[in-house]
Amino acid sequence: MGIVVQNIERASAGVIAGLSAAGVATVHEAQGRKGMLGSYMRPIYTGAQIAGSAVTISAPPGDNWMLHVAIEQLRDGDILVLAPTSPCDNGYFGDLLATSAMARGCRGLVIDAGVRDIRDLTAMGFPVWSKAISAQGTVKATLGSVNVPIVCAGAHIEAGDVIVADDDGVCVVRRAEAESVLAAAEKRLANEEVKRKRLAAGELGLDIYSMREALAAKGLKYV
Amino acid sequence: MGIVVQNIERASAGVIAGLSAAGVATVHEAQGRKGMLGSYMRPIYTGAQIAGSAVTISAPPGDNWMLHVAIEQLRDGDILVLAPTSPCDNGYFGDLLATSAMARGCRGLVIDAGVRDIRDLTAMGFPVWSKAISAQGTVKATLGSVNVPIVCAGAHIEAGDVIVADDDGVCVVRRAEAESVLAAAEKRLANEEVKRKRLAAGELGLDIYSMREALAAKGLKYV
Amino acid sequence: MGIVVQNIERASAGVIAGLSAAGVATVHEAQGRKGMLGSYMRPIYTGAQIAGSAVTISAPPGDNWMLHVAIEQLRDGDILVLAPTSPCDNGYFGDLLATSAMARGCRGLVIDAGVRDIRDLTAMGFPVWSKAISAQGTVKATLGSVNVPIVCAGAHIEAGDVIVADDDGVCVVRRAEAESVLAAAEKRLANEEVKRKRLAAGELGLDIYSMREALAAKGLKYV
Amino acid sequence: MGIVVQNIERASAGVIAGLSAAGVATVHEAQGRKGMLGSYMRPIYTGAQIAGSAVTISAPPGDNWMLHVAIEQLRDGDILVLAPTSPCDNGYFGDLLATSAMARGCRGLVIDAGVRDIRDLTAMGFPVWSKAISAQGTVKATLGSVNVPIVCAGAHIEAGDVIVADDDGVCVVRRAEAESVLAAAEKRLANEEVKRKRLAAGELGLDIYSMREALAAKGLKYV
Amino acid sequence: MGIVVQNIERASAGVIAGLSAAGVATVHEAQGRKGMLGSYMRPIYTGAQIAGSAVTISAPPGDNWMLHVAIEQLRDGDILVLAPTSPCDNGYFGDLLATSAMARGCRGLVIDAGVRDIRDLTAMGFPVWSKAISAQGTVKATLGSVNVPIVCAGAHIEAGDVIVADDDGVCVVRRAEAESVLAAAEKRLANEEVKRKRLAAGELGLDIYSMREALAAKGLKYV
Amino acid sequence: MGIVVQNIERASAGVIAGLSAAGVATVHEAQGRKGMLGSYMRPIYTGAQIAGSAVTISAPPGDNWMLHVAIEQLRDGDILVLAPTSPCDNGYFGDLLATSAMARGCRGLVIDAGVRDIRDLTAMGFPVWSKAISAQGTVKATLGSVNVPIVCAGAHIEAGDVIVADDDGVCVVRRAEAESVLAAAEKRLANEEVKRKRLAAGELGLDIYSMREALAAKGLKYV
Repeated sequence: MGIVVQNIERASAGVIAGLSAAGVATVHEAQGRKGMLGSYMRPIYTGAQIAGSAVTISAPPGDNWMLHVAIEQLRDGDILVLAPTSPCDNGYFGDLLATSAMARGCRGLVIDAGVRDIRDLTAMGFPVWSKAISAQGTVKATLGSVNVPIVCAGAHIEAGDVIVADDDGVCVVRRAEAESVLAAAEKRLANEEVKRKRLAAGELGLDIYSMREALAAKGLKYV
Repeated sequence: MGIVVQNIERASAGVIAGLSAAGVATVHEAQGRKGMLGSYMRPIYTGAQIAGSAVTISAPPGDNWMLHVAIEQLRDGDILVLAPTSPCDNGYFGDLLATSAMARGCRGLVIDAGVRDIRDLTAMGFPVWSKAISAQGTVKATLGSVNVPIVCAGAHIEAGDVIVADDDGVCVVRRAEAESVLAAAEKRLANEEVKRKRLAAGELGLDIYSMREALAAKGLKYV
Repeated sequence: MGIVVQNIERASAGVIAGLSAAGVATVHEAQGRKGMLGSYMRPIYTGAQIAGSAVTISAPPGDNWMLHVAIEQLRDGDILVLAPTSPCDNGYFGDLLATSAMARGCRGLVIDAGVRDIRDLTAMGFPVWSKAISAQGTVKATLGSVNVPIVCAGAHIEAGDVIVADDDGVCVVRRAEAESVLAAAEKRLANEEVKRKRLAAGELGLDIYSMREALAAKGLKYV
Repeated sequence: MGIVVQNIERASAGVIAGLSAAGVATVHEAQGRKGMLGSYMRPIYTGAQIAGSAVTISAPPGDNWMLHVAIEQLRDGDILVLAPTSPCDNGYFGDLLATSAMARGCRGLVIDAGVRDIRDLTAMGFPVWSKAISAQGTVKATLGSVNVPIVCAGAHIEAGDVIVADDDGVCVVRRAEAESVLAAAEKRLANEEVKRKRLAAGELGLDIYSMREALAAKGLKYV
Repeated sequence: MGIVVQNIERASAGVIAGLSAAGVATVHEAQGRKGMLGSYMRPIYTGAQIAGSAVTISAPPGDNWMLHVAIEQLRDGDILVLAPTSPCDNGYFGDLLATSAMARGCRGLVIDAGVRDIRDLTAMGFPVWSKAISAQGTVKATLGSVNVPIVCAGAHIEAGDVIVADDDGVCVVRRAEAESVLAAAEKRLANEEVKRKRLAAGELGLDIYSMREALAAKGLKYV
Repeated sequence: MGIVVQNIERASAGVIAGLSAAGVATVHEAQGRKGMLGSYMRPIYTGAQIAGSAVTISAPPGDNWMLHVAIEQLRDGDILVLAPTSPCDNGYFGDLLATSAMARGCRGLVIDAGVRDIRDLTAMGFPVWSKAISAQGTVKATLGSVNVPIVCAGAHIEAGDVIVADDDGVCVVRRAEAESVLAAAEKRLANEEVKRKRLAAGELGLDIYSMREALAAKGLKYV
């Protein structure tokens, strides 16, 4: 505790933009069904779809001091990612911190705790994925750390990893894998488009994916 | 496990349409306050109100193979209803499966697990009531069954039972009782209209329902 | 159980209006970070922001009889606040009760249980903060009490206390403290406006709040 | 609601004794991994292992009237199984009801709600599997039903089905399948004994079950 | 926050002893089924049954400083009761604090958060009822209050109220009502003894409590 | 997925023995209050206190195939640590697997899912810390990985890290830090012994830790 790592590596802006466009479900599949944060992480409003480099925060329960420290570390296109050191649903973050974070180029917040000023954040277009919505305030009394590895909503996240978030939840992509995951995601999207048309025309997945034989081999019985 | 029941009986389209129009709260009261699925089953978007015949799916945790099998069994106006064999919040269903299901006339999905591609499903107007929203993908490795009796979110559901779903949640009506429940629901709706006008005019339920005497008999004291 | 307190004191309309305008997060901070109900209390639709005097209801699980009794006690500008005597997610309240409550001047409902007829309540503009949405009906068999002290979602509430509720949740202000809390809230709002401008211009909270020295004293290390 | 089915069929005492001896894990596997109640159903003390015929109770939340009705329906060797019509953790059952049930030959209680008088029930040797331990009392105001089909902790249970319960939880076996499930369970137990000896001697499951080839075929890589 | 109330009134030792002997279920019924803390409050070991005067603690999440302050306020026979100001499962209390509290005559701890050193506390015979068991440590950075009114596990508790706790959970009795509740509890115990004998002899509650007529009047049907 | 790392480094047996003797609470404090797994991880029986090197398993929901693979990787003194790739409470592990693991020198299992055969495991003296107890069986159909980094109950764990577990829960110590953490733990234990004696003699923590001044400086008021 009490460490701020200042220089972190980030994925390229182009790769991040590509992952943002692909969206959470596709990215997560493209990297082998890994990287999802827990499904209790929900957006405060629907429709946002972002990706960015993680600036990570490990903070004590009910203490948001480190958010001020982390905001100084933001670069344009970053996403704040906060994990409390033990479960907490306090409202660590509201419209003033969002104003500050936006002024530093921040694209959003992912927080395994609470957030407040929902109406203002929505009006400002600052998206947040959180465990809770709560106005319960916090103190500034105990140190945490910034840009150290954290576990947020069950996922291991390192500073500079790419965070992808949309209405389906939040996914983390290792920085070193971001480029190859994007390539796999784009291939997947192209492939899905073909299938979508066939399915829309009434063809069955059973036939498109040739599942009937495998199902029969497993013993599926029609009665 | 490993059974697909192909020919199921369904309630008449007219009865189903009537139950859809009545909505969940009224239908559930009309059948004696029974049939509600657990309140954690929430719609992915507000405003949908549907009814249809249940095509039931019993699926292993984290395995969505049976959804492909079930889609072949759909008739126009059906609703897919999936219960995992043990608790699971994976995203079993997304926009491709929805495309396929809609092509077969499916009106929606009720799933005691997770769903993904929320933005697409919303744009397509394909309503889902689920326990979770999660992009976490599934495998296709183990058999389940289709159109067998299941317990979904605490309610026993058989293939062909009528599912009614709206912003208040999800209710199941036994196929054999659908007609009589509709009759009771319509009587109830007519009755409510009269009461609504009296209450809007400022009359008290205490007087409209003649509750004062019963309350006094139970010992209610005004101080 | 079985008591209805008829004459309760209320805060002045002006103070209540001021607290409503300030909103939950500000009011809760202004009174020393106390008074929040549990974060699981969520609005049925976004955008409502209200304050009013609490008419409290202690009700048995699955029994909404006392709501009818409580509605008679409503004065213009009041808010119904219901706590079941043990955990329950039943739908105690729907559009008919809302019609009646609105006719008596009620501004909304806060209920540590379930509510139903969500679509109608939304259309009527009757806001509800609840633990659950559920169509599961209730009976009218057992007495509770009205305008007695209750614990609702973890907060102690007395009849006549001021309830403030918006998208951030629900906060209770003791009636006797309402005026001083309002004064503190208004001072806070003025103060925040200044800070918001500085933060929007890119100044850091670390500097505005002079935190750097305190952080260093605690041992924060930049690496 | 308001129905008591008086004459129910039961499995034979010998089959029930066999299932009791086999225990929950074995019985559940023997019938194809089905029939488990939710894992939140925990015994009030460890070490009990029972089986018996279900006398089912559907009861309103917070109302234990039907337990008195059900006790009259007990035959020697039965197990009371109660499901509330909506989620409730009240203490429906304590030492007086246990005294009465034991006098009628009851072997235990399975309740998807609360139980109380834990110390007394433990001293009496009356086992209970419940969702909660709570002294919160109930009323006797509203009817439920006895020996109708219920859903208890996610499992569909009919009167006369065989309930098996031990430290691993609770499992239901359809009455009509009890005999064949017992046969499968006993075969399974014999088979396990052989494997246990080989495993205790240090042989690996990888070899005993010949898994290495299947794992390699799936692509498992040792590094 | 930041208040320590030093002189609190307590119920008489004799009344407290009587309530302890009666136990939670009986006391809670004797005072009209009120006063139970949430059923998630569980003892760290079974078999303890205590009553004592509440020394209340309101503490920030993850901060146990006030426990040291509260221990100075203990008198012989008191029970520490701690509620965090927002949900927290940290281990606020362990064997060192228990050693100190026991040295001051403390009978136990009720905490709507976590506790640790379970093995030591059990060996010392210091009973704790808690929401969680967790070794996660706390800081000493922010003030709370001692002997102010708190809400603990959903129950309003004032300093000097009588806490009764056993394997069934925790119940609070208002100090001013302790004597009359004890009288009602003792009457209840005597009455139960008679019933227990009749029930043990095989008589039915349906007959002892003359329920058959009321059930028939409500419409109960035997089929 | 589908990787087995065969050669992992482990801490020395002496260090592990020391951490085992110190116990979870002390070890966790000694390393700066980090490393605790979530408090929902509970032992299946009380009194076990172990430490060992983690053999990690990442497994699909409801699929225990990788446990067989992991057992081959065990060395004397190891602890199996399993995290499902999405939340699951199935019973992945029972007495047969325990027999096999014990034959390979395994000291226990930490599993963020379910376990079964509780009675047998207790009799065998094979300790397990789990999220759930459930007899619900699993399949062997999909690959996972062994000895890769995992997140188990919110904690990041690498193969060879030291796991410490007792009645207070489970804590992970980085392999590279194990020696220094042990040194800090032993210093802490010595220090605690002195304090314990003073506290037992009636001295107050307020005085022993010289807290009175700091409390007064923060504004604590005695009334």
